[in-house]
Amino acid sequence: MSDVVEPNKNTGGRVLALTGGVGGAKLARGLAGVLSGSQLTIAANTADDFDYWGLRICPDLDSVMYALADLNDDVRGWGLKDESWRAGIAMRRLGGDEWFQIGDQDVATHIFRSQMLARGASLLDVTEKLCAGLGIAPSLVPMSEDKVATKVNTDLGWLDFQEYFVRDQCEPEVRGLAFEGIESADLHPAIVEILEADDLDAIIICPSNPFVSVDPILSLQGCRALLEAATAPIIAVSPIIAGRAVKGPAAKMMRELAMPASALAVASYYGDLLDGYVLDELDADYASDVAALGIEVCIAPTMMTDVDSKVRLAEIVLDFAAGITTRQ
Amino acid sequence: MSDVVEPNKNTGGRVLALTGGVGGAKLARGLAGVLSGSQLTIAANTADDFDYWGLRICPDLDSVMYALADLNDDVRGWGLKDESWRAGIAMRRLGGDEWFQIGDQDVATHIFRSQMLARGASLLDVTEKLCAGLGIAPSLVPMSEDKVATKVNTDLGWLDFQEYFVRDQCEPEVRGLAFEGIESADLHPAIVEILEADDLDAIIICPSNPFVSVDPILSLQGCRALLEAATAPIIAVSPIIAGRAVKGPAAKMMRELAMPASALAVASYYGDLLDGYVLDELDADYASDVAALGIEVCIAPTMMTDVDSKVRLAEIVLDFAAGITTRQ
Repeated sequence: MSDVVEPNKNTGGRVLALTGGVGGAKLARGLAGVLSGSQLTIAANTADDFDYWGLRICPDLDSVMYALADLNDDVRGWGLKDESWRAGIAMRRLGGDEWFQIGDQDVATHIFRSQMLARGASLLDVTEKLCAGLGIAPSLVPMSEDKVATKVNTDLGWLDFQEYFVRDQCEPEVRGLAFEGIESADLHPAIVEILEADDLDAIIICPSNPFVSVDPILSLQGCRALLEAATAPIIAVSPIIAGRAVKGPAAKMMRELAMPASALAVASYYGDLLDGYVLDELDADYASDVAALGIEVCIAPTMMTDVDSKVRLAEIVLDFAAGITTRQ
Repeated sequence: MSDVVEPNKNTGGRVLALTGGVGGAKLARGLAGVLSGSQLTIAANTADDFDYWGLRICPDLDSVMYALADLNDDVRGWGLKDESWRAGIAMRRLGGDEWFQIGDQDVATHIFRSQMLARGASLLDVTEKLCAGLGIAPSLVPMSEDKVATKVNTDLGWLDFQEYFVRDQCEPEVRGLAFEGIESADLHPAIVEILEADDLDAIIICPSNPFVSVDPILSLQGCRALLEAATAPIIAVSPIIAGRAVKGPAAKMMRELAMPASALAVASYYGDLLDGYVLDELDADYASDVAALGIEVCIAPTMMTDVDSKVRLAEIVLDFAAGITTRQ
């Protein structure tokens, strides 16, 4: 158990962060403030991706991208800052779909992506181009080139993830989740390459929803085996602080899945996969329970409200990882 | 020769207007102010249609649609009024195409259309839906469901129409035009139906570019034969006033095609097709020359600067048509 922050032990090695959308994107932004572009690779969930307005929307890739470019709207909590909504208003006038809000700047991202995909580019190609346009240094990689679609089993029946998440505002009661297409979806080769690299210093599971953001990545063909074989420590940062999710339905989902909505329950859920776990200061009481799971613990201020707090948490997480030298 | 405006002889019959973009759209708007929705059908050129940002853009259909909905920007001369340009600015940041300006409201039209087309809807279906959304009463019909693409032979070689028209600002010298796909493109069945109808009172060729807006329509399989067989008079309104096109490259194109840039030359160009021709007051001197072509003449103020002048010209044109009872 290590709750003492030591000087940054950045050895120049590489770091892989696994993330979903907004919550994880905050830590990704923090890591980008500490590590060089060539050190950091961020693997983002794409199981929330969907088609809307005939365009391919990749909400988690976009959230990470906008956060890395410091273009995200911290107040609204999603999308681009300084956004306007005239395309959506015009779409409403035409009688088009309007349950998912797309801003006037944001629509350019989806159009650009859809156009490149239609021309045969890979999702990684597109993401690299978008990141280059936004001046983003770290590598952002979709979890897979294969289509995976999260389906939510609810009291209203099976829903597409965005129907549950956006259209229905996470109100339906969750009974289970399925990742359509996961059986034939491979972890992205660009992520495989990093997991097999000798200079990988840490694997960080960002504070994202374990069930709908991180699980799709972990469930990809080959992912768990590669994580287990990797020599770098695997650290998760709790997405639950004092029994609540900072954003999104994680805590509600945990209760509905008959799990306590606690930082401890997330550590148990990840279980053997983890070498280290970062608990918020408000959850320090769980430290011994987490340690009892055979997972090293770091207690830190995990609420990220601005760039400084994102970078500070990233430094703590990296130092924590550097202190875990032996895989269990 | 008739230059006396008589009371509106609207008999309740139908009227078909053939049009290109902005110029023709003004008269279409005027006609919509005089005729009921069920009386008026507007057939628009689609040979300028193209793909941009991966979306299907139909500039003439949109210009007519926006004009009919009184949403067109009269000052800029194209597109929607009260428009903003944030999607385009965001697209530039991403390194996407930016030579064709698409406004934030306008993009909704292209997304809506592209989405419906991708789902298998006909261009007429899409156009009807768009018009319904914008509260447009007359029928707006694409000239064809088949793809036709205007190519411009210039001193810089062959250009796609929008490359010539928008990207290169009509600066290249025109040597000729070709309508790719025209051999296998049929006049839209919805237009055929009207041309064959007993209650068709008038066919009006709007003041659009004869070469790139009207010619594609006239060149469609079956079009000229149906026009010749129709009992309703065919009236054209000159797109040239005092040797100048109100908007667009018509006059420059005429000079480059070794034709005088005059209202008379347009009448000669349409030739036998016409029963009547509306000359601007500034071109009254051509009246006898046009009459000598066997075409009845109406002299009118054809400059349409506001809704009133559009409606006034429409009334004059309809009255003129009503006075031409026998096809020559």
